[in-house]
Amino acid sequence: MLMSGTDYRESLRRYRPVVHVQGERVESVADHPAFAPGVAALALVYDYARREALRPLMTAEQHTSGRRVARMVHIDRSGTDLLDKLEAVRLLCQETGCAMRYLTHDAFNALFQATHRTDADCGTEYHQRFLAYMHRVQDEDLTCAVAMTDGKGDRALRPHEQPDPDAYVRIVERRADGIVISGRKAIVTAAPYVHEFLVMPCRNMSEADAPYAVACAVPVDAPGVTIVARPAGRPGEPAAKFSARYGQSVGAVFFDRVLVPWERVFLAGEWRHSGFLTYAYAAHHRHSCIAARAGFGDLLIGAGAMMCEANGLPAGETPHLREAMVELIKIVEGFYACGVAASVYGVADPAGSVQPEPVFANIGKLLLATQIYDMHRLAHHVSGGLVVALPGPEEDHNPATAGRIDQMLAARPDVPASHRAEVARLIGDLTASDTAGWYSLISLHGGGSPEAMKREIWRNYPVADRVRLVERLLDRGVLAEPGAGVSKGRQPGRCCAAGCQAPEALPKAAE
Amino acid sequence: MLMSGTDYRESLRRYRPVVHVQGERVESVADHPAFAPGVAALALVYDYARREALRPLMTAEQHTSGRRVARMVHIDRSGTDLLDKLEAVRLLCQETGCAMRYLTHDAFNALFQATHRTDADCGTEYHQRFLAYMHRVQDEDLTCAVAMTDGKGDRALRPHEQPDPDAYVRIVERRADGIVISGRKAIVTAAPYVHEFLVMPCRNMSEADAPYAVACAVPVDAPGVTIVARPAGRPGEPAAKFSARYGQSVGAVFFDRVLVPWERVFLAGEWRHSGFLTYAYAAHHRHSCIAARAGFGDLLIGAGAMMCEANGLPAGETPHLREAMVELIKIVEGFYACGVAASVYGVADPAGSVQPEPVFANIGKLLLATQIYDMHRLAHHVSGGLVVALPGPEEDHNPATAGRIDQMLAARPDVPASHRAEVARLIGDLTASDTAGWYSLISLHGGGSPEAMKREIWRNYPVADRVRLVERLLDRGVLAEPGAGVSKGRQPGRCCAAGCQAPEALPKAAE
Amino acid sequence: MLMSGTDYRESLRRYRPVVHVQGERVESVADHPAFAPGVAALALVYDYARREALRPLMTAEQHTSGRRVARMVHIDRSGTDLLDKLEAVRLLCQETGCAMRYLTHDAFNALFQATHRTDADCGTEYHQRFLAYMHRVQDEDLTCAVAMTDGKGDRALRPHEQPDPDAYVRIVERRADGIVISGRKAIVTAAPYVHEFLVMPCRNMSEADAPYAVACAVPVDAPGVTIVARPAGRPGEPAAKFSARYGQSVGAVFFDRVLVPWERVFLAGEWRHSGFLTYAYAAHHRHSCIAARAGFGDLLIGAGAMMCEANGLPAGETPHLREAMVELIKIVEGFYACGVAASVYGVADPAGSVQPEPVFANIGKLLLATQIYDMHRLAHHVSGGLVVALPGPEEDHNPATAGRIDQMLAARPDVPASHRAEVARLIGDLTASDTAGWYSLISLHGGGSPEAMKREIWRNYPVADRVRLVERLLDRGVLAEPGAGVSKGRQPGRCCAAGCQAPEALPKAAE
Amino acid sequence: MLMSGTDYRESLRRYRPVVHVQGERVESVADHPAFAPGVAALALVYDYARREALRPLMTAEQHTSGRRVARMVHIDRSGTDLLDKLEAVRLLCQETGCAMRYLTHDAFNALFQATHRTDADCGTEYHQRFLAYMHRVQDEDLTCAVAMTDGKGDRALRPHEQPDPDAYVRIVERRADGIVISGRKAIVTAAPYVHEFLVMPCRNMSEADAPYAVACAVPVDAPGVTIVARPAGRPGEPAAKFSARYGQSVGAVFFDRVLVPWERVFLAGEWRHSGFLTYAYAAHHRHSCIAARAGFGDLLIGAGAMMCEANGLPAGETPHLREAMVELIKIVEGFYACGVAASVYGVADPAGSVQPEPVFANIGKLLLATQIYDMHRLAHHVSGGLVVALPGPEEDHNPATAGRIDQMLAARPDVPASHRAEVARLIGDLTASDTAGWYSLISLHGGGSPEAMKREIWRNYPVADRVRLVERLLDRGVLAEPGAGVSKGRQPGRCCAAGCQAPEALPKAAE
Repeated sequence: MLMSGTDYRESLRRYRPVVHVQGERVESVADHPAFAPGVAALALVYDYARREALRPLMTAEQHTSGRRVARMVHIDRSGTDLLDKLEAVRLLCQETGCAMRYLTHDAFNALFQATHRTDADCGTEYHQRFLAYMHRVQDEDLTCAVAMTDGKGDRALRPHEQPDPDAYVRIVERRADGIVISGRKAIVTAAPYVHEFLVMPCRNMSEADAPYAVACAVPVDAPGVTIVARPAGRPGEPAAKFSARYGQSVGAVFFDRVLVPWERVFLAGEWRHSGFLTYAYAAHHRHSCIAARAGFGDLLIGAGAMMCEANGLPAGETPHLREAMVELIKIVEGFYACGVAASVYGVADPAGSVQPEPVFANIGKLLLATQIYDMHRLAHHVSGGLVVALPGPEEDHNPATAGRIDQMLAARPDVPASHRAEVARLIGDLTASDTAGWYSLISLHGGGSPEAMKREIWRNYPVADRVRLVERLLDRGVLAEPGAGVSKGRQPGRCCAAGCQAPEALPKAAE
Repeated sequence: MLMSGTDYRESLRRYRPVVHVQGERVESVADHPAFAPGVAALALVYDYARREALRPLMTAEQHTSGRRVARMVHIDRSGTDLLDKLEAVRLLCQETGCAMRYLTHDAFNALFQATHRTDADCGTEYHQRFLAYMHRVQDEDLTCAVAMTDGKGDRALRPHEQPDPDAYVRIVERRADGIVISGRKAIVTAAPYVHEFLVMPCRNMSEADAPYAVACAVPVDAPGVTIVARPAGRPGEPAAKFSARYGQSVGAVFFDRVLVPWERVFLAGEWRHSGFLTYAYAAHHRHSCIAARAGFGDLLIGAGAMMCEANGLPAGETPHLREAMVELIKIVEGFYACGVAASVYGVADPAGSVQPEPVFANIGKLLLATQIYDMHRLAHHVSGGLVVALPGPEEDHNPATAGRIDQMLAARPDVPASHRAEVARLIGDLTASDTAGWYSLISLHGGGSPEAMKREIWRNYPVADRVRLVERLLDRGVLAEPGAGVSKGRQPGRCCAAGCQAPEALPKAAE
Repeated sequence: MLMSGTDYRESLRRYRPVVHVQGERVESVADHPAFAPGVAALALVYDYARREALRPLMTAEQHTSGRRVARMVHIDRSGTDLLDKLEAVRLLCQETGCAMRYLTHDAFNALFQATHRTDADCGTEYHQRFLAYMHRVQDEDLTCAVAMTDGKGDRALRPHEQPDPDAYVRIVERRADGIVISGRKAIVTAAPYVHEFLVMPCRNMSEADAPYAVACAVPVDAPGVTIVARPAGRPGEPAAKFSARYGQSVGAVFFDRVLVPWERVFLAGEWRHSGFLTYAYAAHHRHSCIAARAGFGDLLIGAGAMMCEANGLPAGETPHLREAMVELIKIVEGFYACGVAASVYGVADPAGSVQPEPVFANIGKLLLATQIYDMHRLAHHVSGGLVVALPGPEEDHNPATAGRIDQMLAARPDVPASHRAEVARLIGDLTASDTAGWYSLISLHGGGSPEAMKREIWRNYPVADRVRLVERLLDRGVLAEPGAGVSKGRQPGRCCAAGCQAPEALPKAAE
Repeated sequence: MLMSGTDYRESLRRYRPVVHVQGERVESVADHPAFAPGVAALALVYDYARREALRPLMTAEQHTSGRRVARMVHIDRSGTDLLDKLEAVRLLCQETGCAMRYLTHDAFNALFQATHRTDADCGTEYHQRFLAYMHRVQDEDLTCAVAMTDGKGDRALRPHEQPDPDAYVRIVERRADGIVISGRKAIVTAAPYVHEFLVMPCRNMSEADAPYAVACAVPVDAPGVTIVARPAGRPGEPAAKFSARYGQSVGAVFFDRVLVPWERVFLAGEWRHSGFLTYAYAAHHRHSCIAARAGFGDLLIGAGAMMCEANGLPAGETPHLREAMVELIKIVEGFYACGVAASVYGVADPAGSVQPEPVFANIGKLLLATQIYDMHRLAHHVSGGLVVALPGPEEDHNPATAGRIDQMLAARPDVPASHRAEVARLIGDLTASDTAGWYSLISLHGGGSPEAMKREIWRNYPVADRVRLVERLLDRGVLAEPGAGVSKGRQPGRCCAAGCQAPEALPKAAE
């Protein structure tokens, strides 16, 4: 049931999406070199799910079906599930930098919650419909990309006010057999080499925006879908020690009167619930981002330590290099800890699932978003200037110069020059290249810009509880019971002992 | 069995310690105004343990005796215990700023581990001896101060090299009935108003330092003990809205040929185990510090939000104030998250207890140590300049000026001027006074200076695992199994589901 | 003509201001212990102006009168003057922490500019009137405090909208012999022990606020003036090694129908010019603040280095202490450099004076405002925990403990224990006391809060010039001449060579 | 006499250096596309020197010859010269990002000082020899690259201890007609397209290292010289809006028994003077780096503001974007101010020239080195995620997708989609590409790594003066005259008024 990486590649060949890259139409995404690093990264996710030793982490039992499914398409039922997902994503990203498939997980969990809520409020039947769809995806072990960020047009205007109505994706027609959608999604990670798109709104909507409150699933090769993608990583570049192997493609996706049958529609005009879906997705996704960037950080830590050795200046013996390495570790484990805390204090949803606690999840994402730049700085600090001084790999094969370069690179007798060059190029690839630029920008703005995180932190924080502490201290007003606001979710002494598995035992957030 | 605050005060009157403060000998520490804020803070710890609603958090079952004891004197058996302690300390410090009694907890847990380890290595019988002592303290519900930081003398010299042999506390005589110790401990929190001192070494020792490798318990009024203390908080100061009520005394403690019976001796010359005891204590204590300062941070958050309101500039409506409040929250919850992660990834000790994971615990302490200054800055940012402009509380009773001051303070019709003054004074007390200075310095250096944390982070971090990731990426060397180093302690999918209660399920740290 | 410190004290006794402190009416400010540190700090400013070696720095020729006057009451005519003022303030604050008299300078320069501008626009005669007043102050060598920050009341309302019309100082009556003013100024540095108040508006005004657009000079003992002050520093506290000697009082000043003769009125209802006066003052004052806090920083640097020595850990030999010392130096000299640049690129005013370049001046103030907290942190880092552990100075005279404390403090044979204690107390006083709180808050909010600086930086920065660079790079639009926006004021190759003395040679700011 | 850009290109064709790039030997550096952006950047430097309006800034009178020369090859005689150089470099780098030719200036000034000092100490005649050489370079208007950073080999060993004696460049033979040198220089900016190399030592030397204490001038095409270079910028890349136009090549330069005639030798074995030459160069070069990166910062500020506009979110109207823009400005002008201060407090050299004050120069370089990462972050913050989402420029010419992309990019009616794409690509090029990586690494490590700056700051700072302030405050020891250490160089009231031109008026640094 679980596909291998090879199965996944093969499965892609059964789709015929309209994909453009580097100015040309793509025949087969599974075989086009521009996407090879992206396909390889996703294939690794598939392969890891079948490794016996990783099975407890990479798969999980789906409670709605009782079937064992890939964790990257699973609905979380406990703080333990959240922790397991966190570790699974970190482990995958330690290999690939960005595992991409957790996007399916994040959207599935948000849709699970939102369809339940919409049904309760509007009497719709989205939840069962979504379950049926999700079970099929789990059974066929597919990957879905998330088509969320709209083109947006003039940012000062709401969706329905845009001069161009297709700036955001919307329902242009409601038919007996489904809805017809049009519009543009601007940033869809992994777009070319997935099986399906989960179309989701990227903001709260007003009544006039109702046609824009739409969530549904669309095969990548549905008629009317066009994908314009960027290459994944830096395929074919000999200096790209990491990103010639693994990478991510980002695509713009255009929907041109695409028919979506009703069984694939999960929100269609219930504008009041658009914001909830967006925010629920954000909480899951920011939590996943924390783990992803921690995995990337692990690569930097390893590469930094290796470079120090190759330079002949072991970090443990050189105070300012050790200082920088500790700072790098502090950043990575510091934001990862927020992911752990968001798991432990996970919030039960009435739908029966558990969502990461939003304050911790947003703080973790905010920390990584702004500190990725410091991570680059620290990796550069420990690596020295060789990274920008080293001639390109073509020179390695130039008989007139190769020997000279090797001599120049000889730092320690026990480290071959080629090794030192290789590590320097790896660090250059990870921190001083187009790849590095992609990682920093996607860390800053992916899953929401810092302002969005700050709004969510403020919206969810129990400020009133904190004020009550001061009132009590000043002997003022109603004397609240001490401990009322001790933690933002976990009830004292309950979480682990009573078992995170039982979602009903998970208290609501303090606000 | 659990004392109330009143019982605790009464119990103090049964001791006759030699205490000096402000240049004079103290008759009764329970009744001396200089210590009132300290005694009040400890009394609250006692009272909270008897509140029914807080019982699960503030007490716990001691597995070695089967008796329910105060959590602040309890041995942790699981990640859940660590989380509970974390929350208990935060809750207490939300009220008192610094609960002090967790020091007993931290030392007890370190002694529990270290005595077990020393016995295993040296064939001694310290562990049972310590258990007997600990059970008595638990049964009588006493509080112990930790006498760890020695006077140190010339910092460039080891203990046995000091010109003055009493710079560090040492064994001066071994007798049939016990050991005789002499020397100076420089910084003992809560020294005057506890029942016992736990004397512990503050560093690793060499063989020549063996007499300095000593741990034992000494009643505060044992013959030969002299305490020179600072007042707790700012007792009697009308402007000290917080620290006239709660505070901490720090004392220097002098041991002058103090006889310690063998049943109270837990390390006596086994110099190889001195460092372990110190580091184990540090791990527990830094973990506790995280919670303590988070509680202090909660007060700042509450006071900051209240001051914004009183100034007529609600934080939620003023972008730069909301920004500062979110930054403050980010810092507090950011380092608290490290405490949570250190709990979840707690490390099982062969003695049967669980210790906070050291990387997360040290990162959390390091973050609070350096960011306490930012917390002050942010509290000042949101509060405005009133804090330093407001005339003192004496002016409130000056008929010639009181009315004028009230007029000047009138900002919003719905907030009385006296309220605004009170909040401004509270913030001044918390962040711009001797109290603030104490909190910043104790955050920076208490439980070890930043350098000590950095050394521990580096010593405990699985750098080799990270290097292996890079080797695998570069197709170099032995291909380790992926996931080998995914997390620094918790085994995938195990912690909560399999139950944190069972310490044998807790894996060892990766290193 | 220039008063000595003794003359200054004597001169204060000729005034009879209504001053309250600590809940009581003050008989003689020159003799009241609560103000002694403030009077001492100002007296030192007077004494330094008469030292021969400092004469070029501490005095200057007033171009409008040709007379040599104290630099702290002088009108700047060149970038050199601005640099000299900067250095003079730093030198004074290296001794006293805060020299206070530069406030007179800052207000004089702003009034010099603003009266000239108002006259040109409104046909008034304020400039000559102000010159006459200023010459008298210079000749009598008086000090003026700046009464600028109003009580403000509800911060969401403009002055004329306040429920209490006295929340801001305003003209309540215009008479043949002068104006009558009422209202409250909330934060007036040095209020009790100066000769005059310069009443100035603290914001821009609308037409309806015209009565609030008022600037004038009022003797401290004018009928209707009441001062409620805080003590200067920490007079009488034995632990306050610095602030028992030098300090600053801040007072609230109440004006109750105070008559101000016309010759002392410099703005009276010309509301369009209120903002200019405020901003001009801000530019001068923020420039002075930079120098003041650099002087304070010099004390921290010196004390930190001395403490390292006393602890037996010389900074130059201990990597992490040297690192912290360099960081401290970087902060202090980094913001001081902004003061230097603001001088070199000083902006000529049509009135014939020179104002600090506002972008650099605001950046310097912004840097010090937020980094004063880091300065405290770094001073604590290098000092260690002794500062909060050391018993108070009363213990030095307790025969039962003094010897023990001395033993405990002995770190190096060549540094007496009393010396180590003294330095620790100095650092505690400077960075961990009420004094430290005052310095941090006054750094953050004094002379305008960070938001105000940011607004000024944005308002004054030549963003359009920067955009033009990019347009040129993209071969787009009008191709501006390169170098048009090279520097924000100084014309290439002109400043020093052509002579800063000639104000006509000083170009206008780029915007 | 001053070459135009065209003259410069033509002049390059008269040299026949052995240059390799991308694995191949280069026929003509002036015509090879890999170096075009580098040649263009240098050509602009030549052209600007001939613009009438820029003449005062871009040229200066060489006092040793009385001839007007390009400022980039001129010896500074005053603080004004230093300021002029600072502004000239900033202006050039506002256009090209990195002007490169200031390296000649920095090395010339260092050699001017060091040859004078060596002669005085050793009785050599290097100074006159250097003057003759320099005058010729000035007259022919040549550009020299600085060959300073050696290959270094094992960093734990001194030059003479290296297993490979050519790890550092050294004298292998002294002959009647000159010296013969061999060895490797690892990072030589602009190496392929200059006229000459100035070979200089990169560290202090011990006596055993004497053969390594060598400074001399070598034509790029001297027999035995081999250059292995990286391309300049990103030539030919359509997405590289900036770095396809301007860029810098870095080359490794190999010296293989190169004969250098005596008239081109400026240090040959006087090992005691090697460190001085290195440090003097560092002071000049770090000062130049400040201006260079400020120019780069100006481009970021302009591009950021333009991107905000193009996104429909003008920075002035969006609080968090204005906040980020002000932060960016604060960084750029903050470190530039250090360059200004280093000029004003410039230190006179006995040779008759003026060197930037080292504390300010090193602080400025240290600030830019670490804050370049924040500059990237802030540019990303204001730009939004479009930078990584935008398909490549090839897509602009794909008829199947170009129109769709344009629709997606339409944000504001008054900004064409192509404009928005162009700005996004420019920001991507400047901050999220290989170019960005180069800028960040060269900022961090170029001209010395942060550790080097910190050492220089500590070495040059008048700590003892600061300690004296505290001694005076504590009434301890010799009472130094106040003001002794007021500023680290400039004598009160002297610099500008007395004229920076007169180097004898420039005081020595305080230490």
